[in-house]
Amino acid sequence: MSVPRVAGFRFAGVRCGIKRRGPDLALLVSDRPAAAAGVFTRSTVPSAPVVLSRRRLRSGRARAIVANSGVSNVAMGAAGLRAAEQMSGLAARALGLPVREVLCASTGVIGMPLPLAKIEAGVLRALRALRADGLRDAARAIMTTDTHPKLAGTTFRVAGRRCAVAGIAKGSGMIEPRMATMLAFFATDAGVSPAHLRRLWREVADETLNRVSVDGETSTSDSAVILANGAAGAPPIGGPRGPGAAALREALLEVAGSLARALARDGEGATKLVTVEVAGARDDVEAERAARRIANSLLVKTALFGGDPNWGRILQTVGAGRVRLDLPRTEVRLCGVPVFRRGASTGAAARARAGRRMRAPEIEIGVRLGAGRGRCRIWTCDLSYEYVRVNAEYTT
Amino acid sequence: MSVPRVAGFRFAGVRCGIKRRGPDLALLVSDRPAAAAGVFTRSTVPSAPVVLSRRRLRSGRARAIVANSGVSNVAMGAAGLRAAEQMSGLAARALGLPVREVLCASTGVIGMPLPLAKIEAGVLRALRALRADGLRDAARAIMTTDTHPKLAGTTFRVAGRRCAVAGIAKGSGMIEPRMATMLAFFATDAGVSPAHLRRLWREVADETLNRVSVDGETSTSDSAVILANGAAGAPPIGGPRGPGAAALREALLEVAGSLARALARDGEGATKLVTVEVAGARDDVEAERAARRIANSLLVKTALFGGDPNWGRILQTVGAGRVRLDLPRTEVRLCGVPVFRRGASTGAAARARAGRRMRAPEIEIGVRLGAGRGRCRIWTCDLSYEYVRVNAEYTT
Repeated sequence: MSVPRVAGFRFAGVRCGIKRRGPDLALLVSDRPAAAAGVFTRSTVPSAPVVLSRRRLRSGRARAIVANSGVSNVAMGAAGLRAAEQMSGLAARALGLPVREVLCASTGVIGMPLPLAKIEAGVLRALRALRADGLRDAARAIMTTDTHPKLAGTTFRVAGRRCAVAGIAKGSGMIEPRMATMLAFFATDAGVSPAHLRRLWREVADETLNRVSVDGETSTSDSAVILANGAAGAPPIGGPRGPGAAALREALLEVAGSLARALARDGEGATKLVTVEVAGARDDVEAERAARRIANSLLVKTALFGGDPNWGRILQTVGAGRVRLDLPRTEVRLCGVPVFRRGASTGAAARARAGRRMRAPEIEIGVRLGAGRGRCRIWTCDLSYEYVRVNAEYTT
Repeated sequence: MSVPRVAGFRFAGVRCGIKRRGPDLALLVSDRPAAAAGVFTRSTVPSAPVVLSRRRLRSGRARAIVANSGVSNVAMGAAGLRAAEQMSGLAARALGLPVREVLCASTGVIGMPLPLAKIEAGVLRALRALRADGLRDAARAIMTTDTHPKLAGTTFRVAGRRCAVAGIAKGSGMIEPRMATMLAFFATDAGVSPAHLRRLWREVADETLNRVSVDGETSTSDSAVILANGAAGAPPIGGPRGPGAAALREALLEVAGSLARALARDGEGATKLVTVEVAGARDDVEAERAARRIANSLLVKTALFGGDPNWGRILQTVGAGRVRLDLPRTEVRLCGVPVFRRGASTGAAARARAGRRMRAPEIEIGVRLGAGRGRCRIWTCDLSYEYVRVNAEYTT
């Protein structure tokens, strides 16, 4: 996916020396006022940047995001909150913005103080590096154990005017002590009212970024933020019905969906991108429970790593989730091949065919429960020796 | 733990040829009427033996249990239920008992029919092999990927009369396609009313067998059954207050607790037995949620395998479970060493000390949340390369 320019935004990713190597400070700035919305971790131990950014987003407006990798800012009490305020204050002063319009994020080691002197030097360096085409640098600077930067973007039309949206994400990678964190930052030059942006962003995140699961964990720092600055000059979108509203929604779903799949594919130790599709559940809540059980089941994930068309493990974990199913109407498909249907295995030949297709880098698990009309899709990855190595052999 | 004789019971474990090798058919029989109680999987796809045994236990009475390993009887529809009825019928005829007093269980491959001819021959062989000291043979015959048979027992006094209880268990091991199943069968020669036995057994299972988690899965076949035949000649126990009631409860907790720990220690690929103790939660429900999150967290389990005193992962997974905690009052201990206290790390020296103690084969994780008086204890194991190997490399 090529990433278009987003008018009125500049980006930078520079090295400030927190990580052992590579860029570790990202800056994203709108050159004019922007509507802003965020979705954050539901953890009861949110990081200080999450607490601060969530509070600042109540206004529905923000102009900049400053983010570092290498050290998170979690479980540091009042000192952590002060450090987050200082970090965003440094960026605000450098950019000449009110501090309430600057959001921040941190990902990395927990239990260590933010190195503010390094961050100050990094912010000044980033200021000089800001460029309209700097998004890839920013994507690099928020990486931890990600194996590559993740960015995506697309264009769409609002009342005939060309608009663009681009986003970056990192995640399901960790560094010592390796708390997985998902960060995602989006910029669009469409004009959107803060109230609509908030609803829409929640909706989009729920269908995309919130549908990724590598290991069933929720980081204390998960943050997904979007800024919309109207620089494309199209009429602002104020609700779900007006001109361009559907196009904006489609574009966000496309970009966020693409990043969500990239996160799952790059999960720690992942060898396969796995799409779990559950249909026929009693309702969407049960469908989501079933899909998440399948996506997080160690038995299913190791079977996928082994290329084993094991419908037994899939049904077992769905059943264990107290999900209603009608066995004679239940069907399990692996890479499109039905392996369980009408209450029974479809036989060894089908299983062998599914097993062959499961050697591909992308695997689909399709489950119909025959109990209703609930549906859910989740992206995940398999569980390999490499996952155990990454998370066991590095010791703090 | 030495296992005492239980008066009026005989046991056998023989080979009938379902598994590739080793004994695979177990028989447990009381020589007189017995009260009986069971707790079973909460899966919405219970196995046929679970459906049948649960139904028969409504009477509160049973005399025998027949169990096989090698083939489970899951997802086979009406044919599966008929096969379970036939299997228990074969045992009932051989023993001269009404079929309604015979329970059954199966563990192993799913999606294959029970080989009833083999089971019939096995039942006749088991009949001849029944012995008062045959419990270890029975424990062997229900093993799947368990590395050793698990049995335990103890004695206690009821109104001055010596009584005994003994139990066997298998689990957290699987065979192709490796659905984990926990089976546990207990026999006591104390006399207990069916109504009291039912309540007591539920309570004991909730504090012991239901506190084991290897990989967060619930098998379709999980079954724990106790028979109480009164053959010790002590006055029957009809409620929680009478003579011997407390002693019986203690004895059951001891034996079931011992078997629960044995199951966790023998989890697939386990190198360590891990006890998770959560205190100070808002209530017991939140404490259990926190303890289960910790026990099932891939990040925590891989850190334990790596001997990494990683309090960050522990707090992160508790927070992700939407468990209330008061960070300044939260404490994390690893093998007795506080590594997080009053909202902060206790430093590198403490972490190193904890790391050294974590080389032992048994690890304790103690977490205080400072939010209330809820408590919970769970037994689990670490997650090793071997877990991935066992569950990925064997393909069906």
